[in-house]
Amino acid sequence: MRLSFIGIEDVPMIEPGDDLAQIISDAVLAMGEALQADDVIVIAQKVISKAENRYLDLRSVTPSADAVALGLEVDKDPRKVQAILDESNEVVRKRQGVLIVEHRLGFVQANAGIDQSNIAHEDDADDSLCLLLPVDPDASAERIRVFIKQCHGVDVGVIINDSLGRAWRNGSLGLAIGVAGFTALEDYVGKTDIYGRELKVTLVAAADEMAAGASLVMGQTSEKTPVVLVRGYQPKEPEDQALRGVRPLIRPKAMDLFR
Amino acid sequence: MRLSFIGIEDVPMIEPGDDLAQIISDAVLAMGEALQADDVIVIAQKVISKAENRYLDLRSVTPSADAVALGLEVDKDPRKVQAILDESNEVVRKRQGVLIVEHRLGFVQANAGIDQSNIAHEDDADDSLCLLLPVDPDASAERIRVFIKQCHGVDVGVIINDSLGRAWRNGSLGLAIGVAGFTALEDYVGKTDIYGRELKVTLVAAADEMAAGASLVMGQTSEKTPVVLVRGYQPKEPEDQALRGVRPLIRPKAMDLFR
Repeated sequence: MRLSFIGIEDVPMIEPGDDLAQIISDAVLAMGEALQADDVIVIAQKVISKAENRYLDLRSVTPSADAVALGLEVDKDPRKVQAILDESNEVVRKRQGVLIVEHRLGFVQANAGIDQSNIAHEDDADDSLCLLLPVDPDASAERIRVFIKQCHGVDVGVIINDSLGRAWRNGSLGLAIGVAGFTALEDYVGKTDIYGRELKVTLVAAADEMAAGASLVMGQTSEKTPVVLVRGYQPKEPEDQALRGVRPLIRPKAMDLFR
Repeated sequence: MRLSFIGIEDVPMIEPGDDLAQIISDAVLAMGEALQADDVIVIAQKVISKAENRYLDLRSVTPSADAVALGLEVDKDPRKVQAILDESNEVVRKRQGVLIVEHRLGFVQANAGIDQSNIAHEDDADDSLCLLLPVDPDASAERIRVFIKQCHGVDVGVIINDSLGRAWRNGSLGLAIGVAGFTALEDYVGKTDIYGRELKVTLVAAADEMAAGASLVMGQTSEKTPVVLVRGYQPKEPEDQALRGVRPLIRPKAMDLFR
């Protein structure tokens, strides 16, 4: 197998209301590439959130007494703390400057994925502009998949990725936060190893592996190259509705050894 | 940027004592590819361990009283428990059938990375043959890098990867356990975002992102495609000795929020 991770050039700055599916489609065509049925399109969370106008101005946030207390405890702007709490199911860990939470979408991550870099700051002298995760990244991915199908007649896969930290390793890693058109979690149950013996570990986080590789091509300032075309994977939509989207990658709290 | 992940075909079954650097080099040439200075070679841990004869026959293991007790507690072969303890600094979590440990190399992972699939079992009716991680994966990677340099005159990067589980997500993910010839943890400190503002999150686990993408090409039975050539990355050896190898990716226990 050979996979090509192709950074899509000249994607314009994305503004609220932009038709991202059309923009991505145009940018791919402008590179002389035609979308194919073995393509997966990986899109940085940041541009999805911008197109969906997920900006939050901290000046509009009134922190609760809890947020003020927690902000003092971890030395963090109480309005930012409030924004994090509003996006989260629970605080998992806290320390100076950082809150590890379970995001309402189920992801365990720092600061609920709320970002203050790579966003416009014309009128933003006190760093008050933030960007939240998309409301429903699977739905965002599915809309783009459907648009590509309608305009180009091909069934591509779509991943929305974001850079997340890890518990035991340094450095961020690109992971999938939204998936459409293929199986995020590959299950090899019943398959055999090269000696014909049944595999014991059978679940592979295929969407995360692809999201990570794409993240390397995007680089740190992912808005410069917010879209990566992964060619050669041959994505297949799972028939079972429950296996679609990013949900199968998320471990339920009851199965969590670390909470 | 465009990265190609090329699965190297026809790598033979690896046996203890095999010269893996020569075998990989031959297999790349047999595909009509010449190694280039912008290549990173990703090699599955399993074939490194086999070449280095890291087999362990559980029939040769006498479990301690502690291993017997722990085996009863988690319902696991006490000889396997002993093998895990022998490879580990500490047990981090335990549950039915699984021990999460800090491996002596610093990785927090299930069962110390000891594997019983994809290994030969001619004389192994009771599943007693295991494969341990390499003694020093950075050194294994460096030996292959030096060989390529000597034979082909090019400075490639080398990653040894393995599939690891995660705390909060389902499915295994390919990660780097040994690195040579490039910077595993990219530090963007002092760099600015697209609006000229200094980046706050600056550390990117580049070697893990590459290891993950390569893992997707290897597939579940990684011995069929145990070597993936990543083309287009332009690896650079860090000048500072302390930044070489996989070590910068490993978070010290003192910085760990979950132990």
